[in-house]
Amino acid sequence: MKYTPKKPPSPKTVVSPSVIKRLPRYFRYLRILIREGKSRVSSSELAERMNVTASQIRQDLNCFGGFGQQGYGYNVAYLYAKICELLGVGAGLSAVIIGAGNLGRAIVRSSMFEKRGVDVVGIFDINPLFVGQDVGGVKVYPMRELKDFCEANKVDLAVLTLPKEAAAETAAEILACGVKGFWNFTGQELSLGEAAVVENVHLGDSLMTLCYRICSEEEQHGN
Amino acid sequence: MKYTPKKPPSPKTVVSPSVIKRLPRYFRYLRILIREGKSRVSSSELAERMNVTASQIRQDLNCFGGFGQQGYGYNVAYLYAKICELLGVGAGLSAVIIGAGNLGRAIVRSSMFEKRGVDVVGIFDINPLFVGQDVGGVKVYPMRELKDFCEANKVDLAVLTLPKEAAAETAAEILACGVKGFWNFTGQELSLGEAAVVENVHLGDSLMTLCYRICSEEEQHGN
Repeated sequence: MKYTPKKPPSPKTVVSPSVIKRLPRYFRYLRILIREGKSRVSSSELAERMNVTASQIRQDLNCFGGFGQQGYGYNVAYLYAKICELLGVGAGLSAVIIGAGNLGRAIVRSSMFEKRGVDVVGIFDINPLFVGQDVGGVKVYPMRELKDFCEANKVDLAVLTLPKEAAAETAAEILACGVKGFWNFTGQELSLGEAAVVENVHLGDSLMTLCYRICSEEEQHGN
Repeated sequence: MKYTPKKPPSPKTVVSPSVIKRLPRYFRYLRILIREGKSRVSSSELAERMNVTASQIRQDLNCFGGFGQQGYGYNVAYLYAKICELLGVGAGLSAVIIGAGNLGRAIVRSSMFEKRGVDVVGIFDINPLFVGQDVGGVKVYPMRELKDFCEANKVDLAVLTLPKEAAAETAAEILACGVKGFWNFTGQELSLGEAAVVENVHLGDSLMTLCYRICSEEEQHGN
């Protein structure tokens, strides 16, 4: 299958949002299989690793056309390439991180972007002490240069790790410079309408779920 | 409604997991209403703010007994208290952060724990340069003291922000000290069986979803 950059799913492969939501997990597990040097995987083996049912996996992956074969299983490299194409991995997206605090630095230094073919081209902060620093190979620029930078570098997405008070204004500002998506860690709602996609990360929700599960477990075990 | 610490949902209020999963969002929006000094909210107003349907909200909140009244709406303080109780907020859970890198520091310094009544009692790291530091009012201890500390302080949950290579071993070690839950940022699968609850955070999945949505939007707009 030919790889074409910046190409979203072809009309031939229409995939339901619920399946799309699960694809990043497949992406992760297929990466592990590739690292392990496996060329094939059966739906049952993948199911066991991912802790889902084999029929769920067959259902999901059949959306991309049945390239799993009875008794052969799935071609790991092909499946991985297909999922990468669907998810826009290697679509050549570029990103800026806005806010060079601990969270911004943690995100830049993680391998997340590289793994997903997203190029982090700059970090921005108002703190003059941070400006000019190299964080994980990416330079920190002053906030006042953000707008021009986004325009000049055709930045696709911005990671918002700045204080929530400044989030909405900053997002609106660079929206005008062609930024198409925001990865929002600020907890501040962004109402950008149709102009851009926003992926909100509310870590506190995940913490809360954990607390709930701990308390329920205690109940079950009668502690 | 009397508040009882470490009390999981009472048998009277059995709530489906899908509703529980949505409760942290209600928690967040109700906090905003409280900050705004609102004492009542109608299902339609709450629905508009949360960008869901009013019937969804009525359905969810009726699980806790219909304390919403026609034409009156919901009592914000009561609803907030009820959701806090259900989710174990203020259950007096204590946490340690394992890994004083950027992510660990960002998490400690956020208001997440305080908002949810979780007490962060210590941070642990192998780096001697970090040991003894104060991070957001919490002291950094050497890793070798982790086990004894968890035992002595009856630590309920551990936040894993250490390198993934060390995650499984560290988790297994403190599991024996009564730690009941793990908030796992390492990307390393933890197989702890029934012994503890694990909440995995895969930020990369969220990044991938954003990339996918950006690429699909471009397609729709014919770019």
